[in-house]
Amino acid sequence: MSLSLVNGRLASSIDIDSRGLAYGDGLFETVLLSQGRALWLDEHLQRLCHGARRLQIPCDLAAITADCARLLVGFSAGDAILKIVLCRGVVARGYNPLPAETQRIISLLPAPASSRQHWQQGVGLGVCQTKLARQPLLAGIKHLNRLEQVLAAGEMQRRGYIDGLVFDEAGKLIETTRSNVFIATAGRLLTPALDECGVSGIMRQQIMVAAEKLGLLVKEANIEISALYGADEVFICNSVIGIWPVTKIECMHKAAGPLCRRLQREFESHFYA
Amino acid sequence: MSLSLVNGRLASSIDIDSRGLAYGDGLFETVLLSQGRALWLDEHLQRLCHGARRLQIPCDLAAITADCARLLVGFSAGDAILKIVLCRGVVARGYNPLPAETQRIISLLPAPASSRQHWQQGVGLGVCQTKLARQPLLAGIKHLNRLEQVLAAGEMQRRGYIDGLVFDEAGKLIETTRSNVFIATAGRLLTPALDECGVSGIMRQQIMVAAEKLGLLVKEANIEISALYGADEVFICNSVIGIWPVTKIECMHKAAGPLCRRLQREFESHFYA
Repeated sequence: MSLSLVNGRLASSIDIDSRGLAYGDGLFETVLLSQGRALWLDEHLQRLCHGARRLQIPCDLAAITADCARLLVGFSAGDAILKIVLCRGVVARGYNPLPAETQRIISLLPAPASSRQHWQQGVGLGVCQTKLARQPLLAGIKHLNRLEQVLAAGEMQRRGYIDGLVFDEAGKLIETTRSNVFIATAGRLLTPALDECGVSGIMRQQIMVAAEKLGLLVKEANIEISALYGADEVFICNSVIGIWPVTKIECMHKAAGPLCRRLQREFESHFYA
Repeated sequence: MSLSLVNGRLASSIDIDSRGLAYGDGLFETVLLSQGRALWLDEHLQRLCHGARRLQIPCDLAAITADCARLLVGFSAGDAILKIVLCRGVVARGYNPLPAETQRIISLLPAPASSRQHWQQGVGLGVCQTKLARQPLLAGIKHLNRLEQVLAAGEMQRRGYIDGLVFDEAGKLIETTRSNVFIATAGRLLTPALDECGVSGIMRQQIMVAAEKLGLLVKEANIEISALYGADEVFICNSVIGIWPVTKIECMHKAAGPLCRRLQREFESHFYA
C-alpha cells in the first residue's frame, strides 16, 4: 500500500527539478493512522505551518487538509502512516527561493512493524558519535535536511542498536535519531531544550501538557551525559511509537520507572486498542 | 531545454519515496558545458565520489560517466549546465541508510545568463545575517542539505544583492551563498579553511593550483570580517561563473586588483571563447 497525491493529483513521482530534491527546501510530517483516525493531525499541521513561516514557504493549509481527507476516505481499519511533505516547488536553478510555486505531497504509507514489545519492555540505546550542528534558524522544525539523522542512524544500525542518543557539539543531549527524550530525576521530568538543534516533537508536546495536568513538574533544560546516567528514568517518544522506556544506555542498565509508566497509561489508548 | 537520465533512462520525474527528497540523502555537482565540452568533469566526479565515500553511498562512477557521455552526444555549441545528482535511492520509511539502491540523475539544463559583465566589472556583495552551522562531517562536500544556502540567498535577494558573504557562528568567513572567496593581502592569497562548513569548490581548487604555478603564495586560513575589510583585493569563484572581482562589500568600496586579474587571464579561455 502506497498512495500519493501531489498538489491534489494521484501521482507516484515528482519533477526532477523539485527544490525538495535539489536542496531539501521543504518540511515534512509523519502522522500515525490508528483505529481509523489521524492522531494529532491538527497539531502536526500547526507545526508544518510554523516551519513554513520560518522558511517562508507558502502553506495552503486548506488544500493540505483537503488532500489528507481525500486519502483518508479510502482508509479503514489497521494502522498506517500519513506522510505530508511541503516543498518550495520548482524554480530556475540556483538557491534563490522566490518566487516559487509550492508542492504538497501527501502519501499513505504502510504502518511500521508493531512496537508493543518496546512499549512494554523498553529499549537499549547507543550513544551516537555523530554530533548535531547548532543552527537556531532550523532548530525545532521538521525540515527535509536530515543528513545528520541519516549519519547517526547509520552509525547505530552498524552497531546493532534500534536507536541512539544524539548530542550537539557542545555535549548537550538533544534527541535520539528519530525521537525526543525525557529523563526523570527526583520526581521531576526534564527534556532537552531545542532552541539550537533538534525537532520539537508532537508527542513531546503532548507529554508536557499531560504531565502538567497530572501535577508533574516538567521543564526544558540543558542535559549532559552525566545527568542522563544519573537519572532515575529515561524514556523516548515520538508520535508514531508513542513512549518507550529506556532500559539500557550503552552498557549501563536502567529500569522503566513510575513516571514513564504513568504517562504511558495516559496515552496507551491512542496507540493500542 | 531540459533533458534527464535517471539511472540511465530518459525521465522527467523521480519516485516520491526517493531518499533524495525525503532527507536530502545525496550529493550533486553542476558542471559548465562551454564550447562543446564539460569543464573539469573529472574533478567534479572525483568530488562526487569523495562525498559518496563520506556519506557511504555507493558511487558507480562508470555508470555516471556513461550517462554524462550519452547526454553530451546530443549537445553541440552554446553553453549549458550538466547537473549530476547521486542519492541513496528508495528504501523503507526511516532514516536507517542501509541497504539501499542508489539513484543517479543526470540532467542537461539551460545555461545561466552570461555573466561577462560581472567578470569584467565585478560585483557588490552583502553580508548575510544567516550563519552557517559547524558540522565537520558534512563540511567540504556538496550534499543535498542546502537550506542554509536557501535562507542566505533569500536574505540577499530581498536586499537586492546578487550574492552575499556567509560566516559561521563563530564569525569566520566561509563562502558566499554559492561561491568560494579569496582575499589578497600584501601580495598573498588567502581563502577560508573549509573543515567545519562550506563547499570545497572545483574552481577554488583550480585557482589554488594555478596560483602556485604562477609563484603566488596561497593559503587556507581563518578569515574574520576585519581581514576582509582590510584586504587589498576580494574575489569570488565557482565553476559556473569563473572568477568575479568584488567591488563593494555592503557600503565599502573595493577595486578589482592585479592578482584577481592575473588569475582571470589564466582561466578566461575556459569561460569565454
